[in-house]
Amino acid sequence: MRVISVDPGYDRIGVAVLELENGSEKLVHSECIETDRTQPLPERLHFIGDSFTELLKQHKPNTLAIETIFFNKNIKTVIGVAQARGMIIYLAQLHKCQVYEFGPQEIKIAVTGYGKSDKKAVIDMVTRLIPDTPPDALDDEYDAIAVGITCLAHYGRTK
Amino acid sequence: MRVISVDPGYDRIGVAVLELENGSEKLVHSECIETDRTQPLPERLHFIGDSFTELLKQHKPNTLAIETIFFNKNIKTVIGVAQARGMIIYLAQLHKCQVYEFGPQEIKIAVTGYGKSDKKAVIDMVTRLIPDTPPDALDDEYDAIAVGITCLAHYGRTK
Repeated sequence: MRVISVDPGYDRIGVAVLELENGSEKLVHSECIETDRTQPLPERLHFIGDSFTELLKQHKPNTLAIETIFFNKNIKTVIGVAQARGMIIYLAQLHKCQVYEFGPQEIKIAVTGYGKSDKKAVIDMVTRLIPDTPPDALDDEYDAIAVGITCLAHYGRTK
Repeated sequence: MRVISVDPGYDRIGVAVLELENGSEKLVHSECIETDRTQPLPERLHFIGDSFTELLKQHKPNTLAIETIFFNKNIKTVIGVAQARGMIIYLAQLHKCQVYEFGPQEIKIAVTGYGKSDKKAVIDMVTRLIPDTPPDALDDEYDAIAVGITCLAHYGRTK
């Protein structure tokens, strides 16, 4: 299993590529796709879609792991995030990825063993599990790596 | 201008293709893309994306007209619709369409002249403006045609 994992958004989208190597999680790549806030939504979707497609072509994952959407945010934000998320799911399928979705609690349990961990605990564990996490990684990038770790923990040993 | 117009959804997506012929709206094609409610969302997005791509290839529009999202619905529905909508906007851009978004009031004004028209008034006017609207058209199909009429009214004479 080579997983491309996504923390969905439309301002900033965390993306990571991971696989298992001798039973341990190995980070192949991570980055944040950042869009220009002054652009209208269609242009921002265009940019995200093209950037994500480029990553799919470059890293050839066979699995997409993507976080579910929080319901408790500003509705305009939810709509923006959902629009980008739907596009990302479709693009991954176009590139033959199987899609897995994970909720925030599942991710926290998989990474830290506790479903109510705070952001810092998640980041600490990500850095321990994957020592070569870029030191200048942004929050959304850590989140994406955490989603990828979750997917490998759930399904990585059976594929 | 050849416009592909969309009433976004994920259960049923109305799609129409229109252009102006001697100054009048001509309906080239209309249909509803319907998804299987028993399928998980990624599969439904996959089906919608593939079907919409097929329509883009077949009808070669240069413009996408798409309705904005209602904020006042069930949040789960809003998220589902938004996911399909973002994907549709990106796919249209991949096929070189310029994107225009219209709110429900703009559509009603363009079609009936009155921003608070009910569904029946919109359908009546669509049928008058485009006599060859399929007699068995579904509501979402009429809505898509209305979005296309709106786009042609706003931008059709300048392109």
